[in-house]
Order: sequence, then C-alpha cells, then structure tokens
Amino acid sequence: MIRIGIAGYGNLGKGVALAVRKNPDMRLAGVLTRRDPSQLSSSEIGAPVWPLGDAALHAKDIDVLILCGGSATDLPGMTPALARDYHVIDSFDTHASIPDHFAKVDQASTETGHVALISCGWDPGLFSIARLFAQSILPDAENPDSYMFWGPGVSQGHSDAVRRIPGVIDARQYTIPVETAIEEVRNGGYPKFTPRQKHKRVCYVVAEAGADKKSIETAIKEMPNYFSDYDTTVNFVSLEELHEKHRGLPHGGTVIRTGRTGNTEEHRETIEFKLSLDSNPEFTASVLCAYARAVYRLSLRKCFGCKTVFDIAPADLSPLSGEEIRAKLL
Amino acid sequence: MIRIGIAGYGNLGKGVALAVRKNPDMRLAGVLTRRDPSQLSSSEIGAPVWPLGDAALHAKDIDVLILCGGSATDLPGMTPALARDYHVIDSFDTHASIPDHFAKVDQASTETGHVALISCGWDPGLFSIARLFAQSILPDAENPDSYMFWGPGVSQGHSDAVRRIPGVIDARQYTIPVETAIEEVRNGGYPKFTPRQKHKRVCYVVAEAGADKKSIETAIKEMPNYFSDYDTTVNFVSLEELHEKHRGLPHGGTVIRTGRTGNTEEHRETIEFKLSLDSNPEFTASVLCAYARAVYRLSLRKCFGCKTVFDIAPADLSPLSGEEIRAKLL
Repeated sequence: MIRIGIAGYGNLGKGVALAVRKNPDMRLAGVLTRRDPSQLSSSEIGAPVWPLGDAALHAKDIDVLILCGGSATDLPGMTPALARDYHVIDSFDTHASIPDHFAKVDQASTETGHVALISCGWDPGLFSIARLFAQSILPDAENPDSYMFWGPGVSQGHSDAVRRIPGVIDARQYTIPVETAIEEVRNGGYPKFTPRQKHKRVCYVVAEAGADKKSIETAIKEMPNYFSDYDTTVNFVSLEELHEKHRGLPHGGTVIRTGRTGNTEEHRETIEFKLSLDSNPEFTASVLCAYARAVYRLSLRKCFGCKTVFDIAPADLSPLSGEEIRAKLL
Repeated sequence: MIRIGIAGYGNLGKGVALAVRKNPDMRLAGVLTRRDPSQLSSSEIGAPVWPLGDAALHAKDIDVLILCGGSATDLPGMTPALARDYHVIDSFDTHASIPDHFAKVDQASTETGHVALISCGWDPGLFSIARLFAQSILPDAENPDSYMFWGPGVSQGHSDAVRRIPGVIDARQYTIPVETAIEEVRNGGYPKFTPRQKHKRVCYVVAEAGADKKSIETAIKEMPNYFSDYDTTVNFVSLEELHEKHRGLPHGGTVIRTGRTGNTEEHRETIEFKLSLDSNPEFTASVLCAYARAVYRLSLRKCFGCKTVFDIAPADLSPLSGEEIRAKLL
C-alpha cells in the first residue's frame, strides 16, 4: 500500500482524500494543515491530522505527500520546502513561473534525495501531454501550436476578480468555448482567432442592496485582461440562487491539432483530447493520485530530482504490472 | 540528424518516407525491400534502396529501422530477426499475440544490445495510452474498461474478407460508429452494447459480370465474426466508381471513459480521445517517426530490450529540450 499524505485540506485536498479511496493500492496516512488540527475530524477523514509546522516529524509515515495549496502564494514556498523531507507532487499552474519553480524544487529535491513532480493536473498536466503528443506527431513549422478551448466551466480567477468589485457580495464566472470556432478548427486550415472568437464569459453576480448594478456591469465588462477582450454576459441573481444553482466547480476543455500528410499535403489528420468535468478539483485530485503512484515508483528507483508529467512513462501510472498492461490495454 | 531506415515500402513505408521529411531532426538513410531494389527509384525516394536480404550489411548506416511489414505474416519473424542488428520499431497489431511477440523481440534485442519498440501506431499505440490514462485516473472496479468506437474508416481486414467471396472483383468496407451510442456513453452510466449497437458496416462491392449479386450480399451479411453481428449495407458499384470514390484509407475513432467522483459519487468526469484521419497509413507513419526519436534516445542511454508505448516518457517524443517543453508546452 502506498501511504499518501495531503498538505492543505481545501477543495483539492478533500478531492485527494476521496480519490485515494478509489485506488486499491493506496491509503491515506495523514493530513497536514495550517489550521488548528482539532478543527478537522480525524475519524471522518480516516487518518491523523497534524499541524503543517510539524511536517518534518511525519516524513517516515508518508510515501508521497500531495501538496494541495494554491499556486499564487502557497506552492512557491511550500513545494521547495517540503521536497527536502518528502517525495512530493504539486499542481503549480502559473504557466509563466514554471521554469523558476522547477529550478527551486529541483535543487531542494536533488540535494536531499527526493522525487518531486510539479505542475500536475489537467492544465498543466494532461493537456500539456496532449499538446506535446499532437505537436510531436504532426510537426508543422508554420503552425507550431495546438488549439486550446476551455470550458464550459467555472474560472476561479475570474470569479475572484468580479468579487473584488465594490458592491459585489459574491460571484461566479463561467468560461464558455465558442462551438463554431471549435468546428472551424476541426474543418482544417489554421484559423487565427481573437480571444473574443474563442471564448465567451458569463457572470452570475450577487450585488449589495442598493448597489448600482449598471456600474458593476460596466466595471466587469471593461476590466482589462479578464473581460474587456471577451463578449461578457452579466446576470444579477440572489445569494440563494447563486448557492443553489452555481455552487459546483465544473470545468473542462479541448486540445485540438490538425496536421497535413501526403505527398502534396492532401490529407488532414486531426487529434482531439477533451475533458468534461463535473468537479474540477476532484478530477485534478484523481490525476494527482495516479501520478503519486509514479512518484512512489520513481522513489523506489532513486530517480531523484524535479520531474514533470513529460518525464513519466505511462506504465508508471497504472496499478497493473507491465505484463498485465501489455495483455489488457495495449 | 537521426538516420531513419525503412524496411518494407508499401503504404506504411511510403508514409514513413513522407513523415521523415516533416521532422527537421531526421533524415531517410535507406530503404530495405523484399522486391528487386531496381523496381524502386532511389532518386525519388531520396535514399539508397537495398535488398532486405542484405539487411545485416547496412546496420552502421541507420540509427532506427522502422519495420513496415504486415502483422499477419511479416512482423512475427521480421522484428525479432532485425532487432539483432538494428534498433527497431514496429506496428504489430494482432492484440492477442502481443505478449508472445514481446517475449521473442525482448530476447533478441536484449541479447544483442538493441532497443525494440513494438505495437506502435494509433491502435495499438495512442489509443492504448488513452485507455491506460483514463483507467488509471478514473479507477472503478465495477467498470474496468474504456469504451472504444472505431471509424468512420476503411477496415482492411473486412475489405479483404469481402474480396475473398467468389464473384467479387474488388471491395471496400467502411466501419461506422453509431453516434447515438457515443452520446449514451458521454451522458454517463455504463451502458452495455452489443456489437450491432456500437458499429455499422457499409460495403462497396465490384461484382463480376453475371455474378449473382443477391447471393454475394447474403454471403457478406451472414459472414460470422466479420459481418453477422452487425447491420451491414452492401452497395454494388463499378470498378471505376470504387477507384474514384473509395481509394482513400481514412480511419479514426474515439476512446471514452466516464468515471464518478465525490463523496456520494455525485460527479461525472469524462475523458475523450479522438482521431479523425484522412490517411490511416500516413498518420500511423507519423506516430512511428515520433516514437523512432524516442527509440534513438533510449539507444543512446543503452536502455536495451523490448519496449511498448507504455514505457516511453512523453518528453522523448519531442525534438525540443526539457527546458523548451517545460517553458512552451507545460
């Protein structure tokens, strides 16, 4: 049994606790939290709860520690620090900062003989692998990229941006892919899209009593980077309606690449990878658990240092043996 | 530059020659053929053509030899034999015989210090990886498998079966997935399908003058394994029409898995991987080239023996460095 630890018990950490139960070769061995541990119920979680500050004391109890903090403020410090005591895996998703994060985590894990897998989940993660496969199999110097569409789903960053507007009590923002744009990509050619042509944004907003809804709507629609480049719909709803109809965290998306083959490039080949998720954090947690198995195996082989999903052979994700996967899945 | 060799210059071998041109880090270094080499034009191919019987003489000229023979009669002997002199890759696709093929190729390649990657392409190959990912990320003991739909596309095995019927001059068989069944899988639950509920078969048949078309149609529709379990449509066409409208080799398909997450399994997560291919052999050849790069890298690391796509880390498929893929693709 692989002994899994969780550091940080929010949406993602709870998702990991659930996903561990689905994997017969894993058990939850402990939860590290910044909160007072007595606020979490060990018996409900089914594992001991320890203060994060005591992390170094529990390294012997855990084979792989899954870091469930946020990318903005938690993981940049947490992953390099915990990689000194544990084999770790995180879902660091600030794309532009990945090289810097990698370097720091690589140093900490290599110096202390640990395995650390960063930026795991579905994007970065499974979508990254889909991009790499598509572009390696269908190379084309003139069209180096894959097309990415996200949603329909809740963007937490955009929801937070709306919540920061004065007069807003709560809000939820959905990113919606433009289906006709996806069709256009499937039909071949390499269309150039503006942000507006690829995604729509729909907001559900709870305003304070007496707030100026018109100016809130304008503040949303004109917000640079977040909304001004998109067609945005703003719906004002009651707090009850928001909690009832919009409490889920669905998400998903599609990676598509078309390429040409043949003597005169007469044939079109299309690769498409699509996720439709009712729960973004629970699915991300499921991906983390499969990769935690790979981290465990790499630790047994002493392949120390920082890794990404690009470094993991598919076989290491499966609980089955090499013989079994060749016989059943190949 | 990775020096690629091709053994067998049929549809797949020609596809490899084209795919090599798309990969800036590869060049075609030679073609081995069972035919009289003078029947192939070295200048058109852009590389020397050698008799297959002289294979052992050219091992020094080639980094990775891509074996483009058929699975039924060529590859079972060819791959273990050539893996004694070359780093090789094949597309052996007789699923039930893969363990036996693996064992023979593993012995030959291990004994002689070569890398051999077998059963590469899209199924087995990319679809195998999609199955392994989906089942490792969304484990469910009660629903262990992924759903597979093939087509729309030409099945060469079924086309050959029709051609063997007396009175048939030529034929082409299309496998068509039943879209409503795909929708049913996407909508969750774990429907059980009969073969008839998942795929339809459509045949275009050229009959001899004076042949009994009715009995040919009956012979097709009642053929066990190939057609009797499916709704089959038979269209008689002229040889001209067959050559004009049905000379392509399109194919493709979809791997879908849905899983449940959440405390009460209340959330549905869906993973879908889809290929739409105008040319089955040219796409397969493109996959083989990307994996030839991985075989080359494994040979430099002296990771000898038989491998499958499950053993290859995604990073080894890309011409880019580790730093580049982390910065651009993660």
